[in-house]
Amino acid sequence: MPPKKNEGSKKKPAVSEGDHEEITVAEILSKTIVGVILLALLYQFYVYIQVSIVAVPALPKFDLNVWWGPNNTKVQDSSIRPYRIVLSDSMQENLRRKFEAYRRATRIKSLNETSEYGINSEVLGQIFAHWQFKYNYREQSKYLNKYSHFKTNVQGLDIHFMRVTPQPTTENVKVLPLLLLHGWPSSVRDFYDIIPLLTTPRSGHDFVFEVIAPSLPGFTYSQGAVRPGLTTYQMAIIIRNLMEKIGVKQFFIHGEDIGSTIGSHIATIFPKQVLGFHTNTPVNLSKLAQLTLFFGAIFPTYTAGDLADKIYPLNDKFNYFLEEFGYLHLQSTKPDTLGIALQDSPLGLGAYIIEKYLLFTNPNNKINQDGGLSTFDKSALIDNVLMYWSTGSITTSLRLYKESINNYDTEESLARIPTQVPTWGLRTKYDVIQQPDFILRWKYPNLIGITNLDVGGHYATFEKPNEVADDIFKAVKHFLTKTK
Amino acid sequence: MPPKKNEGSKKKPAVSEGDHEEITVAEILSKTIVGVILLALLYQFYVYIQVSIVAVPALPKFDLNVWWGPNNTKVQDSSIRPYRIVLSDSMQENLRRKFEAYRRATRIKSLNETSEYGINSEVLGQIFAHWQFKYNYREQSKYLNKYSHFKTNVQGLDIHFMRVTPQPTTENVKVLPLLLLHGWPSSVRDFYDIIPLLTTPRSGHDFVFEVIAPSLPGFTYSQGAVRPGLTTYQMAIIIRNLMEKIGVKQFFIHGEDIGSTIGSHIATIFPKQVLGFHTNTPVNLSKLAQLTLFFGAIFPTYTAGDLADKIYPLNDKFNYFLEEFGYLHLQSTKPDTLGIALQDSPLGLGAYIIEKYLLFTNPNNKINQDGGLSTFDKSALIDNVLMYWSTGSITTSLRLYKESINNYDTEESLARIPTQVPTWGLRTKYDVIQQPDFILRWKYPNLIGITNLDVGGHYATFEKPNEVADDIFKAVKHFLTKTK
Repeated sequence: MPPKKNEGSKKKPAVSEGDHEEITVAEILSKTIVGVILLALLYQFYVYIQVSIVAVPALPKFDLNVWWGPNNTKVQDSSIRPYRIVLSDSMQENLRRKFEAYRRATRIKSLNETSEYGINSEVLGQIFAHWQFKYNYREQSKYLNKYSHFKTNVQGLDIHFMRVTPQPTTENVKVLPLLLLHGWPSSVRDFYDIIPLLTTPRSGHDFVFEVIAPSLPGFTYSQGAVRPGLTTYQMAIIIRNLMEKIGVKQFFIHGEDIGSTIGSHIATIFPKQVLGFHTNTPVNLSKLAQLTLFFGAIFPTYTAGDLADKIYPLNDKFNYFLEEFGYLHLQSTKPDTLGIALQDSPLGLGAYIIEKYLLFTNPNNKINQDGGLSTFDKSALIDNVLMYWSTGSITTSLRLYKESINNYDTEESLARIPTQVPTWGLRTKYDVIQQPDFILRWKYPNLIGITNLDVGGHYATFEKPNEVADDIFKAVKHFLTKTK
Repeated sequence: MPPKKNEGSKKKPAVSEGDHEEITVAEILSKTIVGVILLALLYQFYVYIQVSIVAVPALPKFDLNVWWGPNNTKVQDSSIRPYRIVLSDSMQENLRRKFEAYRRATRIKSLNETSEYGINSEVLGQIFAHWQFKYNYREQSKYLNKYSHFKTNVQGLDIHFMRVTPQPTTENVKVLPLLLLHGWPSSVRDFYDIIPLLTTPRSGHDFVFEVIAPSLPGFTYSQGAVRPGLTTYQMAIIIRNLMEKIGVKQFFIHGEDIGSTIGSHIATIFPKQVLGFHTNTPVNLSKLAQLTLFFGAIFPTYTAGDLADKIYPLNDKFNYFLEEFGYLHLQSTKPDTLGIALQDSPLGLGAYIIEKYLLFTNPNNKINQDGGLSTFDKSALIDNVLMYWSTGSITTSLRLYKESINNYDTEESLARIPTQVPTWGLRTKYDVIQQPDFILRWKYPNLIGITNLDVGGHYATFEKPNEVADDIFKAVKHFLTKTK
């Protein structure tokens, strides 16, 4: 009989004869209760991890027609108007006066020859001198208009975009639409060098690109929202609606920085419309990815492989983020206060924007005497600053960070939802956030390839147009082979 | 024989007869090794906690004559020169032009009626309107010069201070020197209303104050350093040397914000010179204090008593700090970049400074439609902004945060060293950081008293001069009784 058998089997390991008598009903009960409580706690913990970190949530239902403009203009304007970039005489005169006032005011000299306290005064002096005495408004204005610019209204906002059709091609070369998405504090200016590379057929490839490059809502020539809530995923919807409006149903995407986040959201929310997603900011922004990298610090090489040096030791990385992400902290909390000074001071705006290009292109620029400025075309950097300046749009661009923090839960959910869109990542040598392939695959299970570049930084599309263009051609060739 | 005795004693608790054979020399050895390792680890942990968190370090040996000015001026200038605050015509003309340019430029409207995105555009509009059309430069300039101003060179820097002697007193009223120390983004302007209260004899008190109020080095009228390292404790040394130079060997201190930190350092480094320390920012900035408050979250009422609601739940407080301390993060890392725009845009500077006064005076001002502006004298707020503007000193003031982070270990050591100077804390209702008395006593074992005010915020000396003056008189009366 079973009970007897049990007793018999219990006797063997039992320590002494007396033990048996101690097992009372009360004890069994209390042990069971403790066990049940422990199990319940474990289950709670499991549920928390599952629901809040691991589980793939359902795609939220988004209203695709949120109105971001003033309510009194709630009439859909279907026109698509050509646009010209203007660096007006009155703006130049205003800048001249402001520069004069700045020259007369107390100039602050840096405490040492590095940019450890922020942009070095010598570096700033070089930018200022170039802007005042060498920057040619007429020539640059002509240059900026070399591509076709348009504006059209989407969800209440006038959205600016460039559209560049490829040079005449032979019949067997397909023209593929490619959406280029810039980040912060960038603009479509980042794409001026890469566009001809993308729109020119190249040997060994039976395709070439037609480029569509919008300015993000609230950034430079695109209007900002008049009410809260215009997050990266709302921008994704606006950009997708823009593509619908100009008649491009399916397209490839290349994104950088925030533009990559937005591109990723488009691929997640509208997977059937995205033929392939290329990014030079390949990251998985989910909590699970961050926790994995955090606990992965125990076995860096196991977690990160060749990237171990770039991700660990965690302490160094954490200090680096603390040191470099103050701008992000302030923009995520008080964009409007910060914006007032930046909207009013051209050189202050220039320093704030250009500092990011210098430090995120190569962290060593912080201790270089020239801050890395000599590796850039100064006029190109100033073009970008002027695009923000002339449109008075730095504040509306800063607000995106606040909106994303305010709606973090949805942002994070979207980072957890995998997309089947074919994806290709380009990892540059000095990019700020680096993640191993297996973590990227959680978000991008159809990750066709990763390129590891031994040059370049965060703004690679601007800094290394040749390498990025090569990689886009390579990736799209793979995308086409896979989907054939 | 001992071995036999051991064997015998072991037999009693032994579980079965067979056990005895299992205790081999190897086992004893391995158990001992594990034990030793565990003990060693525990000891390591204990040493770490002791050395890095609990232990009171020795007072560092400070060079009291560090030269902060340019090397080519290394000649001690012993003069003490009268100084006049000037709001020059050319500055006003420059402001007029800048304001005109601002009016013509794109003005950014807030997304809602609060200051959740930073200072609200309506609030800014009110400040701007007052500054342009109501602020009376001539009158304010006269007002600012109502006290005697001086400058003198200390350690290579021209240091500005006000010195206000009390009104004629009867013989039995002692005149006690009181050092007033302002914080950031404040200036001596914060003291204009409290000074007459401190320098006027009051019934029931046989003393009155002579006030010495310096501008911190790099803040408004005092020069900033030309090399790195001018932390709060270096400022403490400069201020003490200033007191020596003007012949005040012993004095009382009242400090607020960073001025309180500096006052605390003076009391710690020069305890014999400080007769009593009064602060309306009573905090202990040591790691131990922070850890105690962190772990104290488990028993909030036990840890914090009546303050529990102001310190816990930790999560709310943490979110509040994240939301409000972006400025601190940016200033601690890139002061020079941020400074360029603030040095160039008067309204941007005004917004950046006044936002702090509004939000740190009452957190509810963030969601109030007028941002709390109506509770302030707008001209007084603009006076303070003009003191930074006319001296072009916002960048040098921002640098203090970077210096303090760069020298965190010494700053933290000083926070751990108790001072025997009699101390009195004034806790205002809305101050940002609140700590229970027992934690304050670690740093100030001679804490004579604490006043809990049910009004006021972080800048109470400016906001509530009557309450603060009353408290200073009360505290000093106690200090004098104790030391009699």
